[in-house]
Amino acid sequence: MRYTIFGESHGPAIGVTLEGVTPGLEVDMELMGRELSRRAPKPDGLSTSRREADQVHILSGLFEGKTTGTPLTLVIQNSDQHSTDYEALRYTPRPSHGDYAGFIGSKGNLDYRGGGHFSGRLTAPLVAAGAVAKQLLAQQGVWVWSHISAIYGILDRAWEDVEELKAIADKPFPVLDDARGEEMRQAILEAKNDQDSVGGSIECVVAGLPAGFGAPDFGRNVEGIFSQYLFAVPAVKAVAFGAGVGFSYMRGTEANDPFEVKDGKVLTKTNHAGGINGGITNGMPVVFEATLRPTPSIGLPQESVDLRTGEEVEIEITGRHDPCVVHRAVPVIEAAAALAACEVLGI
Amino acid sequence: MRYTIFGESHGPAIGVTLEGVTPGLEVDMELMGRELSRRAPKPDGLSTSRREADQVHILSGLFEGKTTGTPLTLVIQNSDQHSTDYEALRYTPRPSHGDYAGFIGSKGNLDYRGGGHFSGRLTAPLVAAGAVAKQLLAQQGVWVWSHISAIYGILDRAWEDVEELKAIADKPFPVLDDARGEEMRQAILEAKNDQDSVGGSIECVVAGLPAGFGAPDFGRNVEGIFSQYLFAVPAVKAVAFGAGVGFSYMRGTEANDPFEVKDGKVLTKTNHAGGINGGITNGMPVVFEATLRPTPSIGLPQESVDLRTGEEVEIEITGRHDPCVVHRAVPVIEAAAALAACEVLGI
Amino acid sequence: MRYTIFGESHGPAIGVTLEGVTPGLEVDMELMGRELSRRAPKPDGLSTSRREADQVHILSGLFEGKTTGTPLTLVIQNSDQHSTDYEALRYTPRPSHGDYAGFIGSKGNLDYRGGGHFSGRLTAPLVAAGAVAKQLLAQQGVWVWSHISAIYGILDRAWEDVEELKAIADKPFPVLDDARGEEMRQAILEAKNDQDSVGGSIECVVAGLPAGFGAPDFGRNVEGIFSQYLFAVPAVKAVAFGAGVGFSYMRGTEANDPFEVKDGKVLTKTNHAGGINGGITNGMPVVFEATLRPTPSIGLPQESVDLRTGEEVEIEITGRHDPCVVHRAVPVIEAAAALAACEVLGI
Amino acid sequence: MRYTIFGESHGPAIGVTLEGVTPGLEVDMELMGRELSRRAPKPDGLSTSRREADQVHILSGLFEGKTTGTPLTLVIQNSDQHSTDYEALRYTPRPSHGDYAGFIGSKGNLDYRGGGHFSGRLTAPLVAAGAVAKQLLAQQGVWVWSHISAIYGILDRAWEDVEELKAIADKPFPVLDDARGEEMRQAILEAKNDQDSVGGSIECVVAGLPAGFGAPDFGRNVEGIFSQYLFAVPAVKAVAFGAGVGFSYMRGTEANDPFEVKDGKVLTKTNHAGGINGGITNGMPVVFEATLRPTPSIGLPQESVDLRTGEEVEIEITGRHDPCVVHRAVPVIEAAAALAACEVLGI
Repeated sequence: MRYTIFGESHGPAIGVTLEGVTPGLEVDMELMGRELSRRAPKPDGLSTSRREADQVHILSGLFEGKTTGTPLTLVIQNSDQHSTDYEALRYTPRPSHGDYAGFIGSKGNLDYRGGGHFSGRLTAPLVAAGAVAKQLLAQQGVWVWSHISAIYGILDRAWEDVEELKAIADKPFPVLDDARGEEMRQAILEAKNDQDSVGGSIECVVAGLPAGFGAPDFGRNVEGIFSQYLFAVPAVKAVAFGAGVGFSYMRGTEANDPFEVKDGKVLTKTNHAGGINGGITNGMPVVFEATLRPTPSIGLPQESVDLRTGEEVEIEITGRHDPCVVHRAVPVIEAAAALAACEVLGI
Repeated sequence: MRYTIFGESHGPAIGVTLEGVTPGLEVDMELMGRELSRRAPKPDGLSTSRREADQVHILSGLFEGKTTGTPLTLVIQNSDQHSTDYEALRYTPRPSHGDYAGFIGSKGNLDYRGGGHFSGRLTAPLVAAGAVAKQLLAQQGVWVWSHISAIYGILDRAWEDVEELKAIADKPFPVLDDARGEEMRQAILEAKNDQDSVGGSIECVVAGLPAGFGAPDFGRNVEGIFSQYLFAVPAVKAVAFGAGVGFSYMRGTEANDPFEVKDGKVLTKTNHAGGINGGITNGMPVVFEATLRPTPSIGLPQESVDLRTGEEVEIEITGRHDPCVVHRAVPVIEAAAALAACEVLGI
Repeated sequence: MRYTIFGESHGPAIGVTLEGVTPGLEVDMELMGRELSRRAPKPDGLSTSRREADQVHILSGLFEGKTTGTPLTLVIQNSDQHSTDYEALRYTPRPSHGDYAGFIGSKGNLDYRGGGHFSGRLTAPLVAAGAVAKQLLAQQGVWVWSHISAIYGILDRAWEDVEELKAIADKPFPVLDDARGEEMRQAILEAKNDQDSVGGSIECVVAGLPAGFGAPDFGRNVEGIFSQYLFAVPAVKAVAFGAGVGFSYMRGTEANDPFEVKDGKVLTKTNHAGGINGGITNGMPVVFEATLRPTPSIGLPQESVDLRTGEEVEIEITGRHDPCVVHRAVPVIEAAAALAACEVLGI
Repeated sequence: MRYTIFGESHGPAIGVTLEGVTPGLEVDMELMGRELSRRAPKPDGLSTSRREADQVHILSGLFEGKTTGTPLTLVIQNSDQHSTDYEALRYTPRPSHGDYAGFIGSKGNLDYRGGGHFSGRLTAPLVAAGAVAKQLLAQQGVWVWSHISAIYGILDRAWEDVEELKAIADKPFPVLDDARGEEMRQAILEAKNDQDSVGGSIECVVAGLPAGFGAPDFGRNVEGIFSQYLFAVPAVKAVAFGAGVGFSYMRGTEANDPFEVKDGKVLTKTNHAGGINGGITNGMPVVFEATLRPTPSIGLPQESVDLRTGEEVEIEITGRHDPCVVHRAVPVIEAAAALAACEVLGI
């Protein structure tokens, strides 16, 4: 299965084409809607005030409610666009956005309105594609769960059992420790109040992958496959498996996962490896953390450059923005993980 | 350019095939040898005592010293193998090695001797391929530099100028702060003394990449491309760009990189983004950190399982091992980065 | 540039996504419309009576009329569908259609209406994509021309100069020898009268490709690249370059193309090789012939099998069909060739 | 499974790397040797007098005689090279060889000796790879058979049953009608006598492929997959499935394959489609014909150009050459078909 996301924030529509979908899958449109509404901005003060209906239209690849195996194209019409908010920024790139790099890469032909193809809005079709991937995985006994592991330095507690993560999946702000969650919300509201933004991390678990999938080699190793899907999510700047960056502080005795046998199954007592050894699944849950940068769109004045004159200028970003994207990104990271897991399993 | 690494630690040979090499490159065999000797174990007490000649034989793709554009196959014969060291471990996988995952994945047909295809020895052909990539990059004014940023929690100081990194490139233990380097060495020696091992991190800089290469999309975004090459290096468990995991602790005002104009060039005053916005190079150096787990081969007894009987057993790993692979991995990470940079540039 | 065609004949829409499009191309919608109308059925008695408006809507990848380099999605809404014509055939596959193979491949989830994803209608988005490719090629001085070389054994005369092909490009029935063209039309009308169909061939020339593109190797050789695009066109069953099948009747002295120098350019006096030696362009026009099978949809009773009962049954195909697709396929083959040429050139 | 062939005719070695090989296959080295000797030149006057030992060395991917799933690299050392035969031709390309196109493509860095990477000698590793593919197919009940269908216009008779093809597989000159075979041999000897060469065709059958594999789409359709492997064989200039070019002379009533049911299996009474409908296997044998051009190396004087001076010159090719490669190409075409069939089946 291969996905291609198309569209621009202020173009006619955004969407995704999935190739190589297993035929005969009864697509659960309700599940897809639920995943999309997890991603949708909510009137909680923590998100943009842009309202997105995110109604998915299926153009192809479905017959009588089931996939046919031919390319499955899902489209979401755009609406509630305030393009004029962006006109002033056409030639003055917003710091740490894709504006400047995209302007150069497109030889000046960037659709700058609302972030264009770089917009976080493009994660909606990704979530829709992920809903299909999740259904395929569920048929194999594979599940994807996650929680917000950190926002602005406030860490959620560690999970002990996958069931804990499953239990919080439908929360609008999925954390294990609600007190920490409240602190995180406060940090977001304070940033918003200061016309600023905050970053954070999402920890994700893919449970049920059997041992033996993947390879150590380029293009086939499981960490490499997952990372490619994850870095294609806007704002993701770091991907770490298992103990991740913590390995840098560890000794082998701490880091190694001793084997054990339970009910005839070979397991490891700990899972510092995050379910992957030598680029191959080892039967333990695949665990990773993705770090997302603070939203670059902040209300405070910032230093830019006028690409027409080459002069330094100060800009102010108007428009509607998220002071934090981490909580909305939870289903997005899960979608990327689900698509990656499908590639690992070859489904 | 596409690389395929082949070989097993105790097989007849290891090697790499590079496809799509630019024709007409005068391959600098001395540079290749220098890169390989940076990777080679040294009699410094910090590395394995296995001696590796790493003499590269070119089987194809070279004529009168220049690449022809046809597949370039480099081979290194194996020698100094002590296969009997491994016989006892054939059915009792070493914790946190690829042994178990590889056994399942190969349906029991794993070449278990010396780690087989999972061996760190396979990074020698990667370094050889990287030397070719570095030459191609040099022709475009692109250079790859790095330092050991951490070992067992001891951090090197931050770099301020690429020249600093260039200056330490030939050091056997490349750190910016030699006092910290000495502490790191001590940590390795202590671990070795305890029959243990330590992990660490390498920070790498790719300087000279022009703005505008890459895309936000899956398969084409620069972070995704780099990460796929980096996770194909054994022991790498985390990859972070720019401020990386630190973004999780930051506000937008701290994280954003203000633009400035210098000598008519658009730059950013800081480089928290690590040279990449929206998956596209922005003209600043690409900066990333790769974290490597502690060597799983440690001398202490460990818990395993006998794959024939399904019973829990205790194993002791004999043979010669590195108490730390981080310092030897520096040219390996650079090689992976160089190959990734070639893909980004389409050379 | 990579294309993905999606849609089913009787689904809501058909379309194509082009990835990796050169940014800054001012898409010539008039050219695209012209190409589509070359493909459209005409009230000439030689084609289906289904009317197709083929209005292209651009969903993404275009800004102010120019490509941005992000995925370009073109959509054509479906209309004038008579799905009930097909209900009777749901479980009784039409001989030599994709029905049976598609039914098995989709595990019974085939959209059987109007040929579904197998329909010749899916060549409309291919022609639209080809129009973009032709524009990109024109910028490089590369042009694609063709003629109907045979229908039901009636052969057009050989071309002598590319200008001849250029001159007939806008003809509804592009042949060099109009008398032969008239014979071909008669053969089609006779077949139609007999509720039968006829096959034929299209010869195509890609002029202006510089020497030195391609490689002898799998995945990179020019014949292999072209053939993959051409066999993705429904009904194509044979692809031959230069003298093609005729090589089987030749000696080396007849087949070899002697070199000559003209105006300082190295050319060959003949072009039996069809512009390709060793899988690499040699600077002469790339010439190939694609053979298309007779339309399998014929009005006469045919032997099928009921996939529910496993019993042999006789079927009659109703609905509207082309007694010959060759003349309508001319712009389709050109589109496939144009996309292939873009891949060869790396644009 | 993906193959990469490397090497040059007069370099140190030629070889192939197979990635993604099914683990646990006991590689039948005797079968591989038998296939290679089918390809080897024989002292029958019909082939080059170059003697090739073609001893295969396995560098990687095999352990205790079985594949491990890691890259399998097979190497054949070169010997009996007469490089001086080629010096005179360095800058005067041989008509219809890859010399000129390769010279331009490599920016003048072509290994011109003995055809370099373009040499027919490179088909030896392809045959070795094909032997592995044939073993994998045999485990699935899939077999590849073929015969010389034409040489210099002399046609072998049509096959009626796959068993006929099986019966002639070990013949040095595999034809169904030995009288025709004798005529073909005569044609080759006459061409040789005239310092000329002849072309021909090979018809190949892949029996046992189940229905439902493939797709109509680019990159996944069965004809496209096969053609890419076949055109990567030197000298192949046309590929036709089933009735192939003959479709151009047919009506639908003649071309369509009526269904029938035999022993509960859905079959077709004829197989004009060559086992493929809509790009998908239909359960009938996949049948194709590949046409190979006459060997461009002929002894007669030919017109070339001096690439240094740009002047027209006459050249004479010395060295040892095949007056016909068709009979030696039989196992090569089968190898390409076997690799293609593995891709179709996803093994």
